[in-house]
Amino acid sequence: MAYIGGKREVIHSVKVGIALVLVTLLYLLDPLFERVGENAMWAIMTVVLVFEFFAGATLSKGIYRGIGTIVGGGLGCFAAILANKREEMFEAIVVGTSIFIFGTVATYMRLLPKIKRRYDYAVMIFILTFNLVLVSPVRSEIIVGLALDRLATVGMGLAICICISIFIFPMWASDELHYSTAFKFQKLASCVDGSLEEFYTIPNDTETLQSTVMQTCKSILHSKTNEESLANLARWEPWHGKFGFFHPWEKYLEVGETLGELAAMIFTFYGYFQSSKKASSVMSQATKEPTEIVMLSLVWILREFGESIKKMKRCRASVLITPKLQSMKLQLNLIYSADSTVEAQENDEKFKITCSSLLMEIVAKM
Amino acid sequence: MAYIGGKREVIHSVKVGIALVLVTLLYLLDPLFERVGENAMWAIMTVVLVFEFFAGATLSKGIYRGIGTIVGGGLGCFAAILANKREEMFEAIVVGTSIFIFGTVATYMRLLPKIKRRYDYAVMIFILTFNLVLVSPVRSEIIVGLALDRLATVGMGLAICICISIFIFPMWASDELHYSTAFKFQKLASCVDGSLEEFYTIPNDTETLQSTVMQTCKSILHSKTNEESLANLARWEPWHGKFGFFHPWEKYLEVGETLGELAAMIFTFYGYFQSSKKASSVMSQATKEPTEIVMLSLVWILREFGESIKKMKRCRASVLITPKLQSMKLQLNLIYSADSTVEAQENDEKFKITCSSLLMEIVAKM
Repeated sequence: MAYIGGKREVIHSVKVGIALVLVTLLYLLDPLFERVGENAMWAIMTVVLVFEFFAGATLSKGIYRGIGTIVGGGLGCFAAILANKREEMFEAIVVGTSIFIFGTVATYMRLLPKIKRRYDYAVMIFILTFNLVLVSPVRSEIIVGLALDRLATVGMGLAICICISIFIFPMWASDELHYSTAFKFQKLASCVDGSLEEFYTIPNDTETLQSTVMQTCKSILHSKTNEESLANLARWEPWHGKFGFFHPWEKYLEVGETLGELAAMIFTFYGYFQSSKKASSVMSQATKEPTEIVMLSLVWILREFGESIKKMKRCRASVLITPKLQSMKLQLNLIYSADSTVEAQENDEKFKITCSSLLMEIVAKM
Repeated sequence: MAYIGGKREVIHSVKVGIALVLVTLLYLLDPLFERVGENAMWAIMTVVLVFEFFAGATLSKGIYRGIGTIVGGGLGCFAAILANKREEMFEAIVVGTSIFIFGTVATYMRLLPKIKRRYDYAVMIFILTFNLVLVSPVRSEIIVGLALDRLATVGMGLAICICISIFIFPMWASDELHYSTAFKFQKLASCVDGSLEEFYTIPNDTETLQSTVMQTCKSILHSKTNEESLANLARWEPWHGKFGFFHPWEKYLEVGETLGELAAMIFTFYGYFQSSKKASSVMSQATKEPTEIVMLSLVWILREFGESIKKMKRCRASVLITPKLQSMKLQLNLIYSADSTVEAQENDEKFKITCSSLLMEIVAKM
């Protein structure tokens, strides 16, 4: 089951609190402090910046932070040693120039869409570490040792973050993606279901359940960005529950995309329906029955899909019901007279898309 | 005019490079280093973390960083002084407990949607500063002086960031929002315009310009998140060019929302059109002319809107053309025979929405 809202947030907050206290022990306990020294602040900073809500986010940020620190620290040490050999004026020029060049190039890389989407954080940490390492030795001269000390404390912070995030009540982005996809199907089904009674009973009221359906459609259309980031994070998460290492996360995006297309169509249908209700206040009762039949099967199909995604079972609908639906569709086309072409065609479209979503899902559930 | 792609990214990167070099001078120049000491690393960190692409983003992050640092530092000092009065064991317990409590509460606050959307960064900096200040004095005893020194260096970093961001080739999120809104109208118009010739000439080809229209519609539908963040940033930007302090940014979101609804309808219309072309390979020529007339006026209206948003002028269409369109719509409804009801009704919808978008825009341009 999906977690209940609110509870997860409290658990996450307590986890961060525990991680912060653990990392503070590096300062508070004398023997540890002797070894790590002032660098312990890097561990605190790591916990605050890296500990994210989802385990996948913590893991990916942590690994990127590690890589950024190592690469930035290494290059920084190299540049600093190079600069240190000559006299002071030359040193200042080398340091300034390399900071400018690396800062500019790395910032430009952060703006490229491909790198921005995935490696933004790693490049940022690279710039930060490179600058801090390069600048410190101008004073302290003990550059490599300093870099290694900092790396060790960052590593300690990362280890605490990742362990707490994964082993104590983990929040998986994969669960979130899985259940939110199933939930979208069911929410849309419930909305459409609830709006059915209003189709012919309340002709003039505009603020009805049908507006709720349109709102739901819009929220489905706008959920893409969120889904993409969840799928990105889900790839990072280790094997757990029913999700293997090579779970086809991109299939969720495809299903989401198809559901979005369906939502756009339902949105248009309801919009059309509302405006035509306003134009001619009493609709012909002849269209009522077939429309309701089509909407009810739409609701039923959506529920089946939601259920089958949630339980990760091959959808019953795909085997038993698709042929039945196809024949029903043909029947509907015959029943519909000229004045109700719109609904028939609209629902036609919906069936087409629904069927394609069905096929996609079968692929996803293989 | 909107900036040309690519050039802006280079300018931004060079600006960040300059800011980094300026902040490095704090280390490199001896007299300055004597005063700010090792704390200069806070200035570097501030530049790397705060300098964003848009001036509004830099400004808001900078101000939030400032507030977070002051509040976190103040509370940290208070807690540290409180803890320092007693013996060591007691001190460790007070420090650990307050880190746990403040860390947990602040992390929980970061998860609340309202705070997450706006103040996420400020709360994060608060946690970071609070912990670092609280933990340092356990060793150094010179707590208030340390906190003030750090605040001063963070302030220096912020000043460098904000000055460079605003005064040297500034990138305004408000420009981006303004031109991208206008550009969306024009892009949709061009796509629809380009697809018109294919309506009856290529009956069986599925990979046509019409798919481009559907792709464009989808990208418009998915642009909401980006627009919202731009509008959020635009509010931070000072008076510049033709944008005053109280420019109605939320109107852009409303226009975007309406354009999204229109895009959903155009998407459905093209989807229907493609599937019905597949079903009956030759469409009746009777529907050709009215459909083209409607689509051409749609293209024209979209172009007018795009142009009027770009130039921030009251749309000519609103005064001269709306009544004409209304009468044309009525004519079309008469021309359309039973078998073309779908297009007529679909375009009806489009007109309705287009008109409502028109009205909204008039309000926005007051």
